[in-house]
Amino acid sequence: MQHFDSDYMEGAHPVILQRLLETNMEKTPGYGTDIYCERAEKKILEACGCPEGKVYFMVGGTQVNSTVIGALLKSYEGVVAADTGHISVHEAGAVEATGHKVLTVPGVQGKLLPETLKTYMETYYGDENHEHMVWPGMVYISHPTEYGTLYTKDELEKLHQICGEYHMPLFLDGARLGYGLMADGTDVTLRDVARNCDVFYIGGTKVGALFGEAVVLPKSGWIPHFFTSIKQHGALLAKGRILGIQFDSLFTDNLYFEISRHAIDMAMKLKKGLLERGYTLYMDTVTNQQFVLLDNSQLEALAGQVSCGFWEKRPDGRTVVRFATSWATREEDVDELLEILGQVSRDV
Amino acid sequence: MQHFDSDYMEGAHPVILQRLLETNMEKTPGYGTDIYCERAEKKILEACGCPEGKVYFMVGGTQVNSTVIGALLKSYEGVVAADTGHISVHEAGAVEATGHKVLTVPGVQGKLLPETLKTYMETYYGDENHEHMVWPGMVYISHPTEYGTLYTKDELEKLHQICGEYHMPLFLDGARLGYGLMADGTDVTLRDVARNCDVFYIGGTKVGALFGEAVVLPKSGWIPHFFTSIKQHGALLAKGRILGIQFDSLFTDNLYFEISRHAIDMAMKLKKGLLERGYTLYMDTVTNQQFVLLDNSQLEALAGQVSCGFWEKRPDGRTVVRFATSWATREEDVDELLEILGQVSRDV
Amino acid sequence: MQHFDSDYMEGAHPVILQRLLETNMEKTPGYGTDIYCERAEKKILEACGCPEGKVYFMVGGTQVNSTVIGALLKSYEGVVAADTGHISVHEAGAVEATGHKVLTVPGVQGKLLPETLKTYMETYYGDENHEHMVWPGMVYISHPTEYGTLYTKDELEKLHQICGEYHMPLFLDGARLGYGLMADGTDVTLRDVARNCDVFYIGGTKVGALFGEAVVLPKSGWIPHFFTSIKQHGALLAKGRILGIQFDSLFTDNLYFEISRHAIDMAMKLKKGLLERGYTLYMDTVTNQQFVLLDNSQLEALAGQVSCGFWEKRPDGRTVVRFATSWATREEDVDELLEILGQVSRDV
Amino acid sequence: MQHFDSDYMEGAHPVILQRLLETNMEKTPGYGTDIYCERAEKKILEACGCPEGKVYFMVGGTQVNSTVIGALLKSYEGVVAADTGHISVHEAGAVEATGHKVLTVPGVQGKLLPETLKTYMETYYGDENHEHMVWPGMVYISHPTEYGTLYTKDELEKLHQICGEYHMPLFLDGARLGYGLMADGTDVTLRDVARNCDVFYIGGTKVGALFGEAVVLPKSGWIPHFFTSIKQHGALLAKGRILGIQFDSLFTDNLYFEISRHAIDMAMKLKKGLLERGYTLYMDTVTNQQFVLLDNSQLEALAGQVSCGFWEKRPDGRTVVRFATSWATREEDVDELLEILGQVSRDV
Repeated sequence: MQHFDSDYMEGAHPVILQRLLETNMEKTPGYGTDIYCERAEKKILEACGCPEGKVYFMVGGTQVNSTVIGALLKSYEGVVAADTGHISVHEAGAVEATGHKVLTVPGVQGKLLPETLKTYMETYYGDENHEHMVWPGMVYISHPTEYGTLYTKDELEKLHQICGEYHMPLFLDGARLGYGLMADGTDVTLRDVARNCDVFYIGGTKVGALFGEAVVLPKSGWIPHFFTSIKQHGALLAKGRILGIQFDSLFTDNLYFEISRHAIDMAMKLKKGLLERGYTLYMDTVTNQQFVLLDNSQLEALAGQVSCGFWEKRPDGRTVVRFATSWATREEDVDELLEILGQVSRDV
Repeated sequence: MQHFDSDYMEGAHPVILQRLLETNMEKTPGYGTDIYCERAEKKILEACGCPEGKVYFMVGGTQVNSTVIGALLKSYEGVVAADTGHISVHEAGAVEATGHKVLTVPGVQGKLLPETLKTYMETYYGDENHEHMVWPGMVYISHPTEYGTLYTKDELEKLHQICGEYHMPLFLDGARLGYGLMADGTDVTLRDVARNCDVFYIGGTKVGALFGEAVVLPKSGWIPHFFTSIKQHGALLAKGRILGIQFDSLFTDNLYFEISRHAIDMAMKLKKGLLERGYTLYMDTVTNQQFVLLDNSQLEALAGQVSCGFWEKRPDGRTVVRFATSWATREEDVDELLEILGQVSRDV
Repeated sequence: MQHFDSDYMEGAHPVILQRLLETNMEKTPGYGTDIYCERAEKKILEACGCPEGKVYFMVGGTQVNSTVIGALLKSYEGVVAADTGHISVHEAGAVEATGHKVLTVPGVQGKLLPETLKTYMETYYGDENHEHMVWPGMVYISHPTEYGTLYTKDELEKLHQICGEYHMPLFLDGARLGYGLMADGTDVTLRDVARNCDVFYIGGTKVGALFGEAVVLPKSGWIPHFFTSIKQHGALLAKGRILGIQFDSLFTDNLYFEISRHAIDMAMKLKKGLLERGYTLYMDTVTNQQFVLLDNSQLEALAGQVSCGFWEKRPDGRTVVRFATSWATREEDVDELLEILGQVSRDV
Repeated sequence: MQHFDSDYMEGAHPVILQRLLETNMEKTPGYGTDIYCERAEKKILEACGCPEGKVYFMVGGTQVNSTVIGALLKSYEGVVAADTGHISVHEAGAVEATGHKVLTVPGVQGKLLPETLKTYMETYYGDENHEHMVWPGMVYISHPTEYGTLYTKDELEKLHQICGEYHMPLFLDGARLGYGLMADGTDVTLRDVARNCDVFYIGGTKVGALFGEAVVLPKSGWIPHFFTSIKQHGALLAKGRILGIQFDSLFTDNLYFEISRHAIDMAMKLKKGLLERGYTLYMDTVTNQQFVLLDNSQLEALAGQVSCGFWEKRPDGRTVVRFATSWATREEDVDELLEILGQVSRDV
């Protein structure tokens, strides 16, 4: 049985576990005020090219999204997002639970395009009744998107510019940021992200950590009393150092980037194999998630041999499934997966 | 200058003012526990054919919507509504402010069609990840819709049935209910509304009252401690009798229905006149709101002579405007409006 | 049967009803953008001595409290109030429903004393764990308080000063403001209120209006997009002019102050009569609410002859009840009430 | 330098780290649907004597509290808690952020006594205006309390009974449950907790785990769609098995109880030593937290040699500090701490 359901099926990169072992009986103060968080913050800010910034560590993505959005928005504001955005669909209403609307606009292959945002803002301000409507107070994008696609540097800069014109912070959900930064052909670097976003996070859960996300504010002090907001959201880890140690490890010796690249190598091998075996990609992506259209007979044939992620049912009856690679994917497993897929392709 | 901006430009029907005057110095207990609320409730329930129900009076529509929805939904649920629904767009995020998502589905001429709802529910339950998503906990429709259109009795019954299958209450926003019930060709009566909805409200603000909406629960006791929820939403009027007196008047001697019919007569005259003068209706509606497509030269020509409601800008540069009649519209004003419109039509 | 339950048992002052009648069929734009709201605003600001300020009209007190507090607080902040404050006890959790904590401190006869506030703030900042606690973001007081007591000018200035030191807005709930301003011996004027508070409201519901509260911001523009917040709270009256007309009337020819004074005259007559008849006041108040301690035999004897407001049960078995006068109280009713009370006092 | 600041200064018990290492590269499905969570649940339910119950794992205490309370309360309800309760003070308004009030009552040494609860409920229902107030919807207690004190079995049963009478769930915060269950002289067992509470949690963060709390529902299915509520609160760990593995380890071979007992032994040794050296305990507690009153000269003398937790400043100028032992406390560290404390006692 081959498992390609998601990129969070294993534990942590061995280097991280080793560091947790070594530091286990040290005594440190709680809530992220320890030396490991300090070190990790410093290394991350250096990698981002914004040494004067600030980093907060939290446990998971939905938690980060609702905490950041809840802290940034004023009570009469909402967050603009693509209709396929994670906060729009798959977070059980976490943003709304903080009292704010997700203002959805049509995404294109998961992306909120600059022209879509521009039109949305112009329509909003052109509407004479707009004071009866939720004010767009910030913009949320994910990179890679929920469909594994990537923004170009030009798109990112345009989004940044539009946000600036309307005084809206730009927030980037980087749950899989490593897999985006190391993808073939991308022209977006970590420093580009830091330069164009007001706040973003670097995902650890899906990229080598047991869990954990590093929220980066390129300008320090930008969200007042964010510590208290984190506490209010139940997102303040008592033993904060466990997050610090993990990110300190990931941002030492380029580990985060190297293991991300490995996932991309595995995904590209898988993609090539899928196409060679006659499978139809639902979308052409260059990151670690590959979406494939399967009909029911293919689904049945795969059952019991391969597990992958359900994505959506298409009106034509076919199903979109996701194969995800990760830092932990072994090449032999990709080989075996392709073997099975080839067999199914021939049989069905 | 002719004003057809909205159906809430005047005060109250004279009968109501007279009753307020007559009762002014009486002493009554507060918060809707007075004799006038009791009488109004009784008459309304009789008109609805559900004498065993319960009526709560509130001040305005947005207030009713967020109070009812906030009281009905469990914390993990949202409310399904058409994307053009009032709660989806024009209530400044009042529903989200209670912590709940508005789950929008594509409306057809303002209506949430039964087949759309059915597809939505089937897709939701067919999605293997639906436990990560907001649960659809109730359904919101407006009748007439925000575009002046009406559900048929058959549609209403189908919506009721689908809601029943999924154990979701059906909530009908009747801010303009009178104008719907008295429209030409409708087969929906007040009793049909009461039979098919778990909760709905009868709008007073736009139909003869100074303000006020009567929330009807065909089955009493159905929302526990709703009184406290109303208080929590700041929706409990201290001198509740002012609402009772108004609805008691409206539901005496068919007043509510007669003044509603008058608005329809005026709207139909206006509609006929618009078509005769070569105007393009944005939508064919049988209620008191008429939507017309105007180009910029027409808009300019009308400025200073006629005021109407801005609705939306179309991609082709034209503007949708709304002409609204009401219980208070005088026939001579419609005549004069048509005169101006005819002149503009010839000149431009 | 004499009713002294509350100060909102009658309709409106006749001048107001007359004005509603006269203007009834005028057409005005909605949502408080009409000429009557403009006029009322101007007169109120003049009376407050802050012509550059801004006034918003809403329907009721709980609505104002949660809308203002929800708009002013940041997500990590709460509002400091006396434990007997209306928002602390009798608003069904309306403030908490906006996501904010009411930070209660011990009141003294209903008042939040400056020294109590000072100690609270010093303790808060002296607590090394205070970043794990809700930040005190504003201060709420009521004047008169829920127990009919009044702040002195000196106390008000000190509260203002402490709030300034900690950058917290001071919000005054003036549901019965008229009855406070016209009380014997008070040294607090409307201008003092406007000078010392960042936002406050002038109660209409209990002082001559059908309903309505005028929220005054001595400095305009101080709460951004407050219009949208009002809408979000369901507090935006469609026919806003009904509020404008009422406050325009109340602030013409000193009406608000004269009718307030009448209520005080009636209350002082009642208080004198209560003491002469041997009743025990629960608290010595100079405003329109008189609180009396009654034992069970007195309560029983009064039943059927007098209705008054339940306030609280004391550990000794006695009950605190409230007799409230208002702008509408007739002197002969006070006479008759005292007659009954005298009889009961002799019999029991 | 000796650190006794808190019971969460080290990592995890070595057995847990060992298990994380061994299972690290296994692939499991996410969100708590893995075999380790299943095993841990089974062992916990067995220990609780309620095999038909249900266990949910979350990351931290504040997160559990707001998720459970937010899921249980209806929109018009609040949670009753002692004024010193963690949710009342030290969770940055997490409960209020879900829209609910914490209804505080006076605690006695951190405990919410049955008679206090009874009086509160009777007063509430005896208040004729109680429908204008937040309904008490559930009761929160912590065991051990924030002051290290314990409920007796009799008190727990009485609380359970009162809650039952008023149809309110009883929720027990067991962040330090192990230290309570293993304390000298307690007559409360884990089964007593499960029998008397509708929901409670067994703390891992402070008792041997890296992080994690096990929420126990003695009756399965009791909170509908709790999975979705957990997601909404950002409390659903992607790699849920990390929680499962930890609790599976803690509930194998009595580990949880043995390491809890160790902390008690260390605390009792410390307490005895404190008293022998003339220190004044702020409260007499039998659990792992010892509260001591220090004057400023003692505080200064300890600075640089010992770090402990700030608790509160007393009106007399003295400071309450907390010394906490844990599963990880070494006896030689207690000895050295006592040595320092003895020296300071002699010198100051």
